[in-house]
Amino acid sequence: MSLIVQKFGGSSVADADSIKRVAKRIVANRKAGHDVVVVVSAMGDSTDDLIDLAQQVSPVPPARELDMLLTAGERISMAVLAMAIANLGHHAQSFTGSQAGVITDESFGRARIIDVTPGRIQEALDQGNVAIVAGFQGVSQGTKNITTLGRGGSDTTAVALAAALKADVCEIYTDVDGVFTADPRIVPGARKIDKISYAEMLEMAASGAKILVLRCVEYARRYGVPVHVRSSFSPHQGTWVTDEPIPEEFLTAAHDQGETMESAIISGVAHDRSEAKITIVGVPDVPGKAARIFKTVASHEIDIDMIVQNISAAATGLTDISFTLPMTDGARAVEALEAIRDDIGFNHVEYDDQIGKLSVIGAGMRSHPGVTADLFEALSNAGVNIEMISTSEIRISVVTRAELLDQAVRAAHTAYGLDSELGEAVVYGGTGR
Amino acid sequence: MSLIVQKFGGSSVADADSIKRVAKRIVANRKAGHDVVVVVSAMGDSTDDLIDLAQQVSPVPPARELDMLLTAGERISMAVLAMAIANLGHHAQSFTGSQAGVITDESFGRARIIDVTPGRIQEALDQGNVAIVAGFQGVSQGTKNITTLGRGGSDTTAVALAAALKADVCEIYTDVDGVFTADPRIVPGARKIDKISYAEMLEMAASGAKILVLRCVEYARRYGVPVHVRSSFSPHQGTWVTDEPIPEEFLTAAHDQGETMESAIISGVAHDRSEAKITIVGVPDVPGKAARIFKTVASHEIDIDMIVQNISAAATGLTDISFTLPMTDGARAVEALEAIRDDIGFNHVEYDDQIGKLSVIGAGMRSHPGVTADLFEALSNAGVNIEMISTSEIRISVVTRAELLDQAVRAAHTAYGLDSELGEAVVYGGTGR
Repeated sequence: MSLIVQKFGGSSVADADSIKRVAKRIVANRKAGHDVVVVVSAMGDSTDDLIDLAQQVSPVPPARELDMLLTAGERISMAVLAMAIANLGHHAQSFTGSQAGVITDESFGRARIIDVTPGRIQEALDQGNVAIVAGFQGVSQGTKNITTLGRGGSDTTAVALAAALKADVCEIYTDVDGVFTADPRIVPGARKIDKISYAEMLEMAASGAKILVLRCVEYARRYGVPVHVRSSFSPHQGTWVTDEPIPEEFLTAAHDQGETMESAIISGVAHDRSEAKITIVGVPDVPGKAARIFKTVASHEIDIDMIVQNISAAATGLTDISFTLPMTDGARAVEALEAIRDDIGFNHVEYDDQIGKLSVIGAGMRSHPGVTADLFEALSNAGVNIEMISTSEIRISVVTRAELLDQAVRAAHTAYGLDSELGEAVVYGGTGR
Repeated sequence: MSLIVQKFGGSSVADADSIKRVAKRIVANRKAGHDVVVVVSAMGDSTDDLIDLAQQVSPVPPARELDMLLTAGERISMAVLAMAIANLGHHAQSFTGSQAGVITDESFGRARIIDVTPGRIQEALDQGNVAIVAGFQGVSQGTKNITTLGRGGSDTTAVALAAALKADVCEIYTDVDGVFTADPRIVPGARKIDKISYAEMLEMAASGAKILVLRCVEYARRYGVPVHVRSSFSPHQGTWVTDEPIPEEFLTAAHDQGETMESAIISGVAHDRSEAKITIVGVPDVPGKAARIFKTVASHEIDIDMIVQNISAAATGLTDISFTLPMTDGARAVEALEAIRDDIGFNHVEYDDQIGKLSVIGAGMRSHPGVTADLFEALSNAGVNIEMISTSEIRISVVTRAELLDQAVRAAHTAYGLDSELGEAVVYGGTGR
């Protein structure tokens, strides 16, 4: 008998019929002899409806109260799911994040999990219940205020509970079949990845693949939780995220240990349209100027991704510094930089939100020095100019013009031999929360 | 500076605009220097919507999960109300029943309050916040499951909090102007009562006046909490329920200590259409038979109201026993009685749901022996036949045909001199929850 943590997102529990379908799936696992803990998001668009309601009374609602409000969403979905399971003749009990022992800091709206003490969940399991837990929420240490975990919070709840309960697997149900070698909307021949390491999945997540948020993968890696990303609309195996072999009991004939993918040089091609580029033109090339620029940006809590500093023009003693950042932080960053222009003595700030980022991820590239050269050649042949480059042990990222990003992704996918012969027309979507 | 507990029902917080109006009212109290604790119900019909959702997945949802689901309703209204107050520049924090220290037993759907430990509420007040508390809900002692208090639960939450916090007054905001001498829909000349004792209000509530539920008045009497029932749509004083004088600081020029009403013999005329009458015909008139009949009914948790046993017919040694009970329990009671017919040896059971109950309430009647005679005369003159009678120190109740109830109420109201010269056309409605 295994312990399975299953997470169902908002689209999987969007209405009564969807909830009944999810209940059947959970009951099938109970009948197969497994202990099951379920983590649910709020139903469909209900979170947006609650945010709309808040906006009607306050343009900037207090963060504590917004979290209190939003947690009503999972409270509804979890209770209704427990009822649907009971209606199939099985015992189920729902628990809020607080009841499930999800202890967080007090950063309302984006709280971090500090500890998970799932005593009541273990008790419910011991009594033969399916435990249904509200995703996305917790309770602050000491002050005991209700918090939400921010984007991807329900996935993180599921992985954190799986870690605390020492579950055999954390299944993330979503509206796609798993993690793909590229976005199938852009690359029709993209293939589902059977198994991927934590490190590669981390790079995929950081590079724009929206299937799992970074923090969720980080949590899974830290605690060694095997994550199985799969479709809530099909019984097929999805993508396993783990550094270990897939547990034999969950392996099906149609799904091997993913050796084919694991031995491939490149696991996948990710892309990201959500970044912008800022170039600070004419920075005096003397020590400390760059540090002060980035300190200013950091003090506004803006995450910088790629950085390039041009070689200084000897004649002028000036250099240009470019970096990428989330497009949503663009205006704030430009404003902050303009404020220190005279102080630093640079010429001006250029803002460019027409960029795209392509990332090639693969643990195999460590031992294949030609990987970078292959990418440059493929992009060159496709007529795509590279504006910025950054690399890690298992990733190469390049910035291109936004309108050339799709053809860049296709060219890279083909160059690394990732195209399948039967292209699967599956949509590669986001995870909600 | 006083501490005021204010309860707003679902119709007072039905939408964003209503919530903003309530927020303004609360802020006005803060500006006047009072500490304010607010108890809210779920918005408008949202509880019904949640029940509908539950029904879609399960015809008989588990009680624990139904309570978990329904408590989402107040969670939404309280957080949004806190936001609306913050938007007016005042500090407010919302608290669930559990956070507010409303400790109950574990009778899901109709939990009883065991204790109230409002440490967090007191702390919020000490910090200058308005504390918003979810009505209708609590947490079970020991097992820490979420519970709901059942009908009138939010009023009871408000009174219980007022008692625990030693508040100066518990204001119950509703959609009518207060407690009336009779239902103004039936008696156009019915008058608002300025002040009424706990005992009289208890009899009113027990006799079908829907403005406050019985348990709420019982709680207020036990802890001596002054309750002020008033309209959320007007600034006028409503009805004070207290055995003490109205506190001077809350008294307005237009509102005296209610001496006029207090010295009246009769406070009001209540009516109830929700009861039915069961008559057990041909019961052997030997000791123990009646006891066994009522024990059977009690074992099904059916509350009996009025009881009449006919004088035994000497020739047959048989008697008839009639009692009234909530119409909703009628079918169950008849079934339970039929099951013991052969055992007890009675003839048959008659069920009659075409009855109405009229009650005349007044502490003054203790010292006026003519009150009962006046009622009988008034009803007789109005052509209303009396089928059953029961009395207490401060109440006389009679059962009539349902279709004669309205004219009976009007006749009694006039007979006791309660008619005002300017009939106020105010609707005398229910309180929701």
